Amino acid sequence: MFILSQISTLPPEEADKEQLKKVTQFMKAELSELQNMLYAQNKYSVLVIIQGMDASGKDGLIRNAFSTINPTGIQVYSWKKPTEEEFAHDFLWRIHKAVPRRGMMHIFNRSHYEDILVPTVYQTHPAEIIEQRYRLINDFELLLKQNYTVVLKFYLHVSESEQRERLAERETDPTKFWKHNPNDQQTLDNRQKFIRCYETLFERCKEQAPWHIVPADKNWYKEHIVVKTLWETLKKLPLAYPPKG
Amino acid sequence: MFILSQISTLPPEEADKEQLKKVTQFMKAELSELQNMLYAQNKYSVLVIIQGMDASGKDGLIRNAFSTINPTGIQVYSWKKPTEEEFAHDFLWRIHKAVPRRGMMHIFNRSHYEDILVPTVYQTHPAEIIEQRYRLINDFELLLKQNYTVVLKFYLHVSESEQRERLAERETDPTKFWKHNPNDQQTLDNRQKFIRCYETLFERCKEQAPWHIVPADKNWYKEHIVVKTLWETLKKLPLAYPPKG
Repeated sequence: MFILSQISTLPPEEADKEQLKKVTQFMKAELSELQNMLYAQNKYSVLVIIQGMDASGKDGLIRNAFSTINPTGIQVYSWKKPTEEEFAHDFLWRIHKAVPRRGMMHIFNRSHYEDILVPTVYQTHPAEIIEQRYRLINDFELLLKQNYTVVLKFYLHVSESEQRERLAERETDPTKFWKHNPNDQQTLDNRQKFIRCYETLFERCKEQAPWHIVPADKNWYKEHIVVKTLWETLKKLPLAYPPKG
Repeated sequence: MFILSQISTLPPEEADKEQLKKVTQFMKAELSELQNMLYAQNKYSVLVIIQGMDASGKDGLIRNAFSTINPTGIQVYSWKKPTEEEFAHDFLWRIHKAVPRRGMMHIFNRSHYEDILVPTVYQTHPAEIIEQRYRLINDFELLLKQNYTVVLKFYLHVSESEQRERLAERETDPTKFWKHNPNDQQTLDNRQKFIRCYETLFERCKEQAPWHIVPADKNWYKEHIVVKTLWETLKKLPLAYPPKG
């Protein structure tokens, strides 16, 4: 059972910042090589799902954690409110079109989990529909796994004070005005409801791919955990350059 | 008039390698900022087209030249032989679907120019069809420009000896076997025909966006020229963070 209030949003006390930053750099250099092999082998693919509340640092994480990876082999999808055409289809339709082909690594900035979170918090859909979505998502992730797609799911866990501070920056820093959203206050008001819903889905959607809860108040630690998890995952895959064809 | 045999594939003699590498690094750091502004402003987009013969170093260039750019804002398309579905449409159909939306930078590794090159060299289409494609491509690039897409076109210019050496590596270096193509010899045999066709299209398709011929025997110089051209282009655009919404 996940209880977010019992999980720290800060690095553990014993974490040595300078030391861990070096480890992160080392792993990022290796990730570049591992991704090259993934691409050359053309068998496995990787889907990294990044969830977290507004201002939990999803954009910055993507900018930094994947900076050593060849842009040819990576593709980022930043999911927004569905377009009219997307909305006229089932909730997995647009998502399914965006899954990685063999050899590729795709990053989802938000994902199909928003289709549980938003209707739950704002009660826009009948409970039964939401209920079925848990099952549909688990089955969808099974489908991906069957096709050699490794699914990694991260939740960026920030404290309320850190979140408030970052949202406030968007009203004062001219390079961040464009990130400001008039609904930010509403999200803050609903913080507890989102947390409850996240706790439920971590539990109910771990069958095909577990969730990694990332303490995200400090950017260097958040980056370290995500890079380390990805690095360990790729290290365990039987990646290899293909033989002479 | 472009005559490739009269354009060097090497850096100019006076080029100072260490000095230029520093300039490249400086510009790459700035490109990261410029791209962030491009994305935030959400008005212009950039399409970088990279052409060149097999083993001219297109993949390596993409890996290195764009390594400081946030993966959220960049997308690479490596165009291969059309699929059955693509082939059942006009030659610009698949290309059009892949042009950048506002704020984005897309990189084409090969492009719609292959649809002039291949039919010309292998004479697979009537001359009239190929003839019309020049005009259709110019009009297509005008269409993109009208929607604030900046089109940058690069030709990676390698010498025959350098090309032969790199192709040979694909048969001896196990990390490069996967790049080996049984048709490599055929491409080499047709080198002169490809060069003639490139010279023609540089001339005939410069109306909407000029071609940049990049001396590409040395990777550091090739990267420098492409980064410099992109940097100068973005510097000239009226990019700005949007005001408070």
